[in-house]
Amino acid sequence: MSETDGRVSRLTVDLAAIQRNYRRLVTELRPGAECAAVVKANAYGLGVAPVAQALAAAGARRFFVAQFDEGLQLRPLLPRAQIFVLNGLQPGLETYFDSGKLIPVLNSLGEVALWTEHAHSIGRALPAAIHLDTGMSRLGLPRGEVEILIAEPQRLHGLQLVLLMSHLACSDDPEHEANRGQLALFENWRRRLPAAPASFANSCGIFLGPDYQFDMVRPGAALYGVNPLRNRSNPMEQVIVVEGKILQARGVDRGTTVGYGATHRIESSAARLATVAVGYADGYLRSSSGRGLAYLGDRLVRVVGRVSMDLITIDVTDLMPDAAHPGAWVE
Amino acid sequence: MSETDGRVSRLTVDLAAIQRNYRRLVTELRPGAECAAVVKANAYGLGVAPVAQALAAAGARRFFVAQFDEGLQLRPLLPRAQIFVLNGLQPGLETYFDSGKLIPVLNSLGEVALWTEHAHSIGRALPAAIHLDTGMSRLGLPRGEVEILIAEPQRLHGLQLVLLMSHLACSDDPEHEANRGQLALFENWRRRLPAAPASFANSCGIFLGPDYQFDMVRPGAALYGVNPLRNRSNPMEQVIVVEGKILQARGVDRGTTVGYGATHRIESSAARLATVAVGYADGYLRSSSGRGLAYLGDRLVRVVGRVSMDLITIDVTDLMPDAAHPGAWVE
Repeated sequence: MSETDGRVSRLTVDLAAIQRNYRRLVTELRPGAECAAVVKANAYGLGVAPVAQALAAAGARRFFVAQFDEGLQLRPLLPRAQIFVLNGLQPGLETYFDSGKLIPVLNSLGEVALWTEHAHSIGRALPAAIHLDTGMSRLGLPRGEVEILIAEPQRLHGLQLVLLMSHLACSDDPEHEANRGQLALFENWRRRLPAAPASFANSCGIFLGPDYQFDMVRPGAALYGVNPLRNRSNPMEQVIVVEGKILQARGVDRGTTVGYGATHRIESSAARLATVAVGYADGYLRSSSGRGLAYLGDRLVRVVGRVSMDLITIDVTDLMPDAAHPGAWVE
Repeated sequence: MSETDGRVSRLTVDLAAIQRNYRRLVTELRPGAECAAVVKANAYGLGVAPVAQALAAAGARRFFVAQFDEGLQLRPLLPRAQIFVLNGLQPGLETYFDSGKLIPVLNSLGEVALWTEHAHSIGRALPAAIHLDTGMSRLGLPRGEVEILIAEPQRLHGLQLVLLMSHLACSDDPEHEANRGQLALFENWRRRLPAAPASFANSCGIFLGPDYQFDMVRPGAALYGVNPLRNRSNPMEQVIVVEGKILQARGVDRGTTVGYGATHRIESSAARLATVAVGYADGYLRSSSGRGLAYLGDRLVRVVGRVSMDLITIDVTDLMPDAAHPGAWVE
């Protein structure tokens, strides 16, 4: 983006950092385990087209989206990738899944039946993933349905079972007892179901170690820079930078209040404030009000007062006046 | 949107409700005061094109955006409207403001100088609004610059002053002492500056009464259904509806936990849960985890467990089993 186009805020996504995060996660894996990529919700808001192509260039061959239409959008961008749709199959969409070569993550015996019926009607096998609910109570076959499927594996006739998966509820806490319980249940069910590659770990789950990694891991948040390790330093690289231009800089009198609700009062007698064109409409969290930090060049400055929809105010008292000039970019 | 297109979530914006909210605010105004409309940040995320046109059809003739490019986007949609750009004028953009017939809200003497210089260079008067900072310390001429402008009104030569405005910091609290202080300062400065129509009140400010309404009020949030009255019932109509389809419904055993972090435990022995295709990526706040409510038809149901990125889980134990079937829409 040029400097003269009038834009006063910008969000930059570092695709190379996403690629480095992908390769970083690969180094955590046991031999033979593969790293897929979760790109649902428009790649966590970062733009699914460039992000998915960057991940494919970094080596990802299997991708997860939440919804069917996300899969159709992704297909032409990644003609050879496996694309899994986590929210499963809804009646009437079978032909779209098939023509888009999308793999439904079947979440119930009802969805299994829909997909096998379609396989029979078109006279060829269809690829499927099956989600076993080991403890989220959200999606996936609940215990009773898993036992039926174990007893009646012929329910899978007509399907090519490419993945058995489950999802961890508490993997952000390595000490949580639920992790080993879910793992034991997943291993038990997997032994008793028809053989298929298995996937269990999300971003945090990868760091629970090789027992949790099986044949494929499914990171999302960690690829985009979110720390998968609670209370430990982040092994992932920051991926996004939000910047805004200074619109105005000014000296303010002692006792002046700043922003909505007058939550901040100036206590120094020679304070200087600058107003920056970034706010919560740009993704700068309102919960950062009064405690956020920003960079002006290499100088760290404090966000003061409440974050507005399109604006924040920073304290630039300690900077040289010419550093905080209108038009300067603040990160 | 058709029922067979595969979508499992939808957000509906009720343009007629926005129009009724606009007319509702007009009824609050003193005779002679006009109601403008703030449509910055893509009309608070609802889509600036349909929202602005609906507001124009309801009678709005003056519109406020935050940034210059928002104004250029709005101009062809509303060829005859006055469009004000709150974030002001940046060097190099003068010709774009002029050709787009955008009115800059000048926030400093520096911006006043830029705009007057441009007026002189093209040999005709240019419309301008001036923002006086009576207590936000965010944008607008600070006290010292206001006093200079009062002493040297010739600084406005070449400009057609169409608006003097300021912005309330604490108008959501009618009892806050800052309101009357800001009002007194605005009235003082206004008397000593060249005559121009005045604007002071945002959504909450309208309800502070006629003293705060001057010639024009500038509601934003209230148009979109946000309550402008703290601790009182909302006089505005709800504008948006977020809905998701049930993907899966199931009975769950007593003692089962639900969702990330296992924050919810099932205590009843015949509980039924349904998983709905709406999550925080769709704008359903994660802070609603464990305490949100939803409608299935006319029945109110509880959101249980943490809100996921694309999914929530609702407790449908008390509903008839066929009410909470996969494919049913939940509001």
